[in-house]
Amino acid sequence: MLTVETLQSLAKPGENRETRQPTKSVLLVLDGLGDLPHPEYGFRTALEAASRSHLDQLAKEGVCGLLDPVAPGITPGSGPGHFALFGYDPLAVNVGRGVPEALGSGFNLQPSDLAIRGNFCSVFRENERIADRRAHRPSDERCAHLCGLLQQVSLGQAAVYVQPVSEHRFLLVLRGQGFSPELTETDPQTLHVPIPEARPLRPTARLTAEVVNAFAQRAYEVLQPETVIGGNGAAYPEERYGVLLRGYGKYPSLTTLPEIYGIRCGCVATHPMYKGVALLVGMDLLGDAHQLSEQLAVLEEYWDGYDFFFVHVKYTDKAGEDGDFLRKAAVISEVDALLPRIRALDPDVLVVTGDHSTPALLKSHSWHPVPVVLWSRHCGRDRVEEFTEAACAGGALGRFRGLELMPQIMANAGRLEKFGA
Amino acid sequence: MLTVETLQSLAKPGENRETRQPTKSVLLVLDGLGDLPHPEYGFRTALEAASRSHLDQLAKEGVCGLLDPVAPGITPGSGPGHFALFGYDPLAVNVGRGVPEALGSGFNLQPSDLAIRGNFCSVFRENERIADRRAHRPSDERCAHLCGLLQQVSLGQAAVYVQPVSEHRFLLVLRGQGFSPELTETDPQTLHVPIPEARPLRPTARLTAEVVNAFAQRAYEVLQPETVIGGNGAAYPEERYGVLLRGYGKYPSLTTLPEIYGIRCGCVATHPMYKGVALLVGMDLLGDAHQLSEQLAVLEEYWDGYDFFFVHVKYTDKAGEDGDFLRKAAVISEVDALLPRIRALDPDVLVVTGDHSTPALLKSHSWHPVPVVLWSRHCGRDRVEEFTEAACAGGALGRFRGLELMPQIMANAGRLEKFGA
Repeated sequence: MLTVETLQSLAKPGENRETRQPTKSVLLVLDGLGDLPHPEYGFRTALEAASRSHLDQLAKEGVCGLLDPVAPGITPGSGPGHFALFGYDPLAVNVGRGVPEALGSGFNLQPSDLAIRGNFCSVFRENERIADRRAHRPSDERCAHLCGLLQQVSLGQAAVYVQPVSEHRFLLVLRGQGFSPELTETDPQTLHVPIPEARPLRPTARLTAEVVNAFAQRAYEVLQPETVIGGNGAAYPEERYGVLLRGYGKYPSLTTLPEIYGIRCGCVATHPMYKGVALLVGMDLLGDAHQLSEQLAVLEEYWDGYDFFFVHVKYTDKAGEDGDFLRKAAVISEVDALLPRIRALDPDVLVVTGDHSTPALLKSHSWHPVPVVLWSRHCGRDRVEEFTEAACAGGALGRFRGLELMPQIMANAGRLEKFGA
Repeated sequence: MLTVETLQSLAKPGENRETRQPTKSVLLVLDGLGDLPHPEYGFRTALEAASRSHLDQLAKEGVCGLLDPVAPGITPGSGPGHFALFGYDPLAVNVGRGVPEALGSGFNLQPSDLAIRGNFCSVFRENERIADRRAHRPSDERCAHLCGLLQQVSLGQAAVYVQPVSEHRFLLVLRGQGFSPELTETDPQTLHVPIPEARPLRPTARLTAEVVNAFAQRAYEVLQPETVIGGNGAAYPEERYGVLLRGYGKYPSLTTLPEIYGIRCGCVATHPMYKGVALLVGMDLLGDAHQLSEQLAVLEEYWDGYDFFFVHVKYTDKAGEDGDFLRKAAVISEVDALLPRIRALDPDVLVVTGDHSTPALLKSHSWHPVPVVLWSRHCGRDRVEEFTEAACAGGALGRFRGLELMPQIMANAGRLEKFGA
């Protein structure tokens, strides 16, 4: 197996053969890119339905394939999908989602902290069973207000930090000693059941389970007087608020991309989760973009200062999760139209792919492999002429594991020495 | 690596989105399916020469690929080939062939038993060197008679159970304590040499080697008065019988498919070896079919009671081993003609593949990857339009390890949760 140590031993500075400048690589990730033929849209995938002239040109000039972010048949979460794209084995690096969310939203996470992803939910006052797992999606303002109340909770064994994320989502950090993330989640993923307690998965997590359950109980009490109000302003007087806790995680110790390859890495993302993963692998967060065109402006602005850029497009996944086939195709078309701005920067390596598939037909992440195109001046050639799932199946990259992408990017960037004599 | 524990943690009940019924998967294995272009038959493979209209239709609607049951370049035995198809690493689960043969023929194997696959052979009376490794393929009746003689052997350290299989083949089980399968085989795989003794591969197998050699010696003695008679009735008075012992195995401890995925598994096979592997991975043996059409009747009869069906077609391999190209093609054509009966059952996932290649040209198992087609309502798409070795090489499944098939079947059956958040 190709280990981090082997890659590290092979890493070298990469230089463009003509300009003698350090080589630059761009990894453009369209979240949830992979799709399935949709019966209501002529049995095309969103990628097939999109305007793709620039992507197809890249496929003609580059080499294509299909990647399995985690393993064939495994549906990846966003964290594992991205760790794989950055060259880490997601089966080995399993970081609870609370960690990248905390880092990505600017929280100064300490190694002993337990980071937790929280959702406000609502339960029926009558029987204390879950009425809505998202508390009718409160407004961001209401979320901030409720988080203010949670911040009043004090626990003997931990300092409590609560931060609103958006709608029903918040971030909880418990600061103390001896915490373990090996607990069951308190989100039962279903309705009309009581909110379960966290249970330790190992004896060493018993204390943590007690603290987490104490927090949930105190949160339930401080939220008691509040009327449940949905995002549309409707009140639900028969319900009261609760919290569901999941994605427990602690700061992992990873050898970062700068440490492995000696590259300066920049992240151009719009959402905390992806920024958080980028920070964990040693990237700088660049700019403060909210839309794709702004992201490209950030890329252009920081072009000279970095060797590797991760550009994350969130809205393909959102459209897929919503089952909105046409919007997913439209986001891809928008990316296609902006691709020339990336090519105009003259990167040495350009890769377009996704972190997993999110077929609009399924309205969820899925196990299907993700199309990928890799272009460099010396990438070789195949017979793929369009950037679609079916065409990529016949490409020179073959079907491969996500973690095998990064060494190929670095090789194309001239940043890996020969192995052995 | 994707471990059994990870798969187990991801398993969930699978439900057809429309009918709300548990999803059903069919794995149709044509033993030794893969083939090579044959110069005497227009440089076609047996699969290319077969009638394939229904298989080709499945390839058009599904996704195709090539699988390596064990690893590229490795010629699989039938046991390893099937363990791989069921999702087990055949390099880790190496069960001596005696075990599935014993289980599949109904022997009540105990955990401490040593199961052994035996062959009657013949040696020259003059010099005690091997004349025929299969004793001129005796009739099944003669095999039973000879086994009756072997059953008279009694050993101090073990109870002896002998059961005829067919022709020169028999099953030997030694029941005692402290037996180890780590011995050398006594089949030298060549002629004109004496029958070798079993040697221990580890010190802990010394006792077992003594017992096995004692059995072989006593067997040689009790068979001494018998005239060697071939399957065609010819007598070989210059020869006498001996036994060759191989495939030593003990009952392995495996996490079964029902334990991993929570599925009810049924096996529709005609031969003991395959039934035995099926039992080891937790399948029920269904019906008592001897021909393909009877096997389909069994499948239909038990359809409602199971979630996963393994249907094993033996005769492709037999034809390949005999070098009978046309018969191999004819068996495939017969399967093709019966495929509509499987599709009429409306499975949620249907896979057709082999456990290894047995090219008629080579008259033996081979290392060539095996074509595979996977169909489900959400399997995705590729450009493969016919189910042949060469066409499958360009499919979306790519070229992959056999053990990666099962997670993809379970994913398509909606039976695996997302990995990570």
